[in-house]
Amino acid sequence: MTVPALVKGTRDFGPEDFRRRQWILDTVRQVYERYGFQPLETPAMELLSTLSETYGEEGDKLIFRILNSGDFMSAIPYPDPPRGSWTADGLTPSRVIPMISEKALRYDLTVPFARYVSQNAGQITFPFKRYQIQPVWRADRPQKGRFREFYQCDADVIGSESPLYETEFLFIFQAVFGALGLAQHVRIRVNHRLLLQAFCHWCGGNDIAFPAFCILWDKSDKVPWEKLQTEFETSGFDPQKVQQLAYLRERLVELPAQDIVWHELEGFATENGLELSVVGTLRSILQPYLNIHQKTENRSGPQANVTVHLDVSLARGLDYYTGMVFEATPMDGGGSLAGGGRYDNLTGRFGKPGLSGVGISFGADRIFDYMKDKGLLDNLAAPSGPLLLMARLEDPTPQAWWDCVWQLRHVYEIPTEIFPEKARLKKQIEWAVKKNIPFLGLAGPDELQAGRIALKNLKTGTQHNFLPHEAADYILHHGR
Amino acid sequence: MTVPALVKGTRDFGPEDFRRRQWILDTVRQVYERYGFQPLETPAMELLSTLSETYGEEGDKLIFRILNSGDFMSAIPYPDPPRGSWTADGLTPSRVIPMISEKALRYDLTVPFARYVSQNAGQITFPFKRYQIQPVWRADRPQKGRFREFYQCDADVIGSESPLYETEFLFIFQAVFGALGLAQHVRIRVNHRLLLQAFCHWCGGNDIAFPAFCILWDKSDKVPWEKLQTEFETSGFDPQKVQQLAYLRERLVELPAQDIVWHELEGFATENGLELSVVGTLRSILQPYLNIHQKTENRSGPQANVTVHLDVSLARGLDYYTGMVFEATPMDGGGSLAGGGRYDNLTGRFGKPGLSGVGISFGADRIFDYMKDKGLLDNLAAPSGPLLLMARLEDPTPQAWWDCVWQLRHVYEIPTEIFPEKARLKKQIEWAVKKNIPFLGLAGPDELQAGRIALKNLKTGTQHNFLPHEAADYILHHGR
Repeated sequence: MTVPALVKGTRDFGPEDFRRRQWILDTVRQVYERYGFQPLETPAMELLSTLSETYGEEGDKLIFRILNSGDFMSAIPYPDPPRGSWTADGLTPSRVIPMISEKALRYDLTVPFARYVSQNAGQITFPFKRYQIQPVWRADRPQKGRFREFYQCDADVIGSESPLYETEFLFIFQAVFGALGLAQHVRIRVNHRLLLQAFCHWCGGNDIAFPAFCILWDKSDKVPWEKLQTEFETSGFDPQKVQQLAYLRERLVELPAQDIVWHELEGFATENGLELSVVGTLRSILQPYLNIHQKTENRSGPQANVTVHLDVSLARGLDYYTGMVFEATPMDGGGSLAGGGRYDNLTGRFGKPGLSGVGISFGADRIFDYMKDKGLLDNLAAPSGPLLLMARLEDPTPQAWWDCVWQLRHVYEIPTEIFPEKARLKKQIEWAVKKNIPFLGLAGPDELQAGRIALKNLKTGTQHNFLPHEAADYILHHGR
Repeated sequence: MTVPALVKGTRDFGPEDFRRRQWILDTVRQVYERYGFQPLETPAMELLSTLSETYGEEGDKLIFRILNSGDFMSAIPYPDPPRGSWTADGLTPSRVIPMISEKALRYDLTVPFARYVSQNAGQITFPFKRYQIQPVWRADRPQKGRFREFYQCDADVIGSESPLYETEFLFIFQAVFGALGLAQHVRIRVNHRLLLQAFCHWCGGNDIAFPAFCILWDKSDKVPWEKLQTEFETSGFDPQKVQQLAYLRERLVELPAQDIVWHELEGFATENGLELSVVGTLRSILQPYLNIHQKTENRSGPQANVTVHLDVSLARGLDYYTGMVFEATPMDGGGSLAGGGRYDNLTGRFGKPGLSGVGISFGADRIFDYMKDKGLLDNLAAPSGPLLLMARLEDPTPQAWWDCVWQLRHVYEIPTEIFPEKARLKKQIEWAVKKNIPFLGLAGPDELQAGRIALKNLKTGTQHNFLPHEAADYILHHGR
């Protein structure tokens, strides 16, 4: 016997959870469509050459590689002479992988998108807006809230440097979290890589030191400040200036982005001789959003304000982003639910240089888990299974019964279940209740003769005798 | 530079094709829901132990295996002493695979379903109807119409032997192909494994010879009859009787299933001393469908009749099915677009014996390719991208313009694109036309002042000055 088990770090989505997650995915899709994004789906498998050397050494280790079919062993040169161990023979995993694996599971949706754009550049009218909602796979160590298969919901605009798209993404964050009922639960943090760069220079770091600065700076959420300050000093940054920045960050991130934040930031720049024209850029990106949302405090429901904070420590990875960066996190802590930013040259390695882009991604599984933990998915109005069980009263089943079931399904479009065997009515009712089916339809010889159905509401116990279209109306109006 | 390329046998679905395939998937989903099936999604990766020894030797070779992460080489015992070749060392692919791979991509949706049912049997109320629409992967040699990644749309009922479910699946075939507009293009062929078994016995074969009989019998479509007859003879079957069956098949499969077919089959059975009570079973399964569809010839559109043929040579694989089998194929030849049947004991190997089930699967990619080849997807009414381009007339963009765009998207729900830079109007119009966006919205200082939009219909060239809600109405009514 084979023990039925899941691969560690993966999970099934049964009926209830499937519908809940689907509702999240559909919500994101709807907003993307409304903003003019076009759908794309790419295969789960990409060539290893497309994926490798893209995600850094750490990311590379997390790629799921697919073993070549057929006699893959013959692709490994037999050691001649054998030296007593795989390593001595030069047959280390990293040497052997390219010999026996040429395909891998996609690690994100961005690289397949870059591959697609490069391959189809001739047919694409730029700027090109695409969205893509598909699972990705990462060989992470499984732990609570971290899965090896999870859905990403990406939207990118490629082929334009216009900052209007950054503004649009703020609206999209609001629209998605608003529609999910999470407007009060999350905040959007934004920053700009040029701001970080100016800070790095001000603290005595050059461009080479910039990645190190970002790594340290990015940690300021998690690592105690004293420890971090020492690390900055060791790396050659001016600890006093770093400390000043840390204070600045604290003050700014406490407040939603608004006039006082810009003034404070510009004041700091003037006082300390920083060239911060990027503040103006950031401000003009945010302003249309702030004007519509934060200043109109009476919006609620799907249009409720989602607060934007300027977080000058936000870096979001190292090499990838070159302009504005975004991240949406729950107010009460926990990992990011969505993020993104502007990048240059995504398609450069595929021979299509010079395409600037900006994109975001919603982590649908993280949103699902967050909402499930908080009980926010319990009262979803999503459709959930059949509304009617047609009881089985006779054996064999008369044609008129089939006609009646067919009518309900195909003329009146009622999701209808049938009971498979003749059985006591009590048993059939119990089964319906277990399956959470709210109505029972009885069509015995008398009803069929009269072309009617006796419809029992299993919640209230009331029963009415209806024509089929009346039964359908009643079911649709009284629902679940 | 990395050459951007797809893995052989896989393909991208750009905006247009994505929408078309999605329409097919949604159609199937809708029908499944209406018949009371509940959704399930399982992970792309399953344990190799779940998948192996299930699909036969040929199928096993087509499983995509995932290389274990980390130092997989250390799991291969170093040959001591080395004997000069991998084979001599006993390191053949089939020996090495279990050492370096414990996961694989799912090969179908049936085995993951069996695994799910076995794992969750305690929580499931049987009979359990589930549907599952997800891609599967097979390491087939890529060729026209055969892909290594393709969507399957499965529906199964498990935990009941009631033949009512077989009847339901006939209705489902009709409902799906009817809704896809394929009612006139496909036919459903049905058969019953017990019929095949009776034939095998009649031709002198015992139960052990049954698989061989099925293999040969199944080939009767493709292999010239003379050649096949010799093969039957070599395998010990009575060639005269086989020939009689072949004639019977020819006569029956030419006619849609109807009274004459049953009479002919029963006549043949009586004449030749065959015990064919299964004919009665088949007939009672088909009759409710035939009564509603084939006898009502004036139904059209989504309710149009899909013809059912009894094809006594249909086997659909060897070991798997135990009862009725179905297959839907295009009238004008080509591979099957959907198929299924009843099976026993799907979950037996996971320690849950005795669960009978019946299920079908639509090959969404095959249906997509078939319909695309015939041009049947060209006039789909599926939504296809933004309806409105809001032109960019000023720099910087005034707040009132953003307010107007926001209103159109969020109050009137118009999928709206914006032009990213200030540019000549001609350029913006050309861009909209290239993107197949039917309307252009102009909101310059005068319009914004008056709270209006000048809306240009890019097909007719007419232009009207509208309030935003009037513009939205106009767009939705004049559409594409």
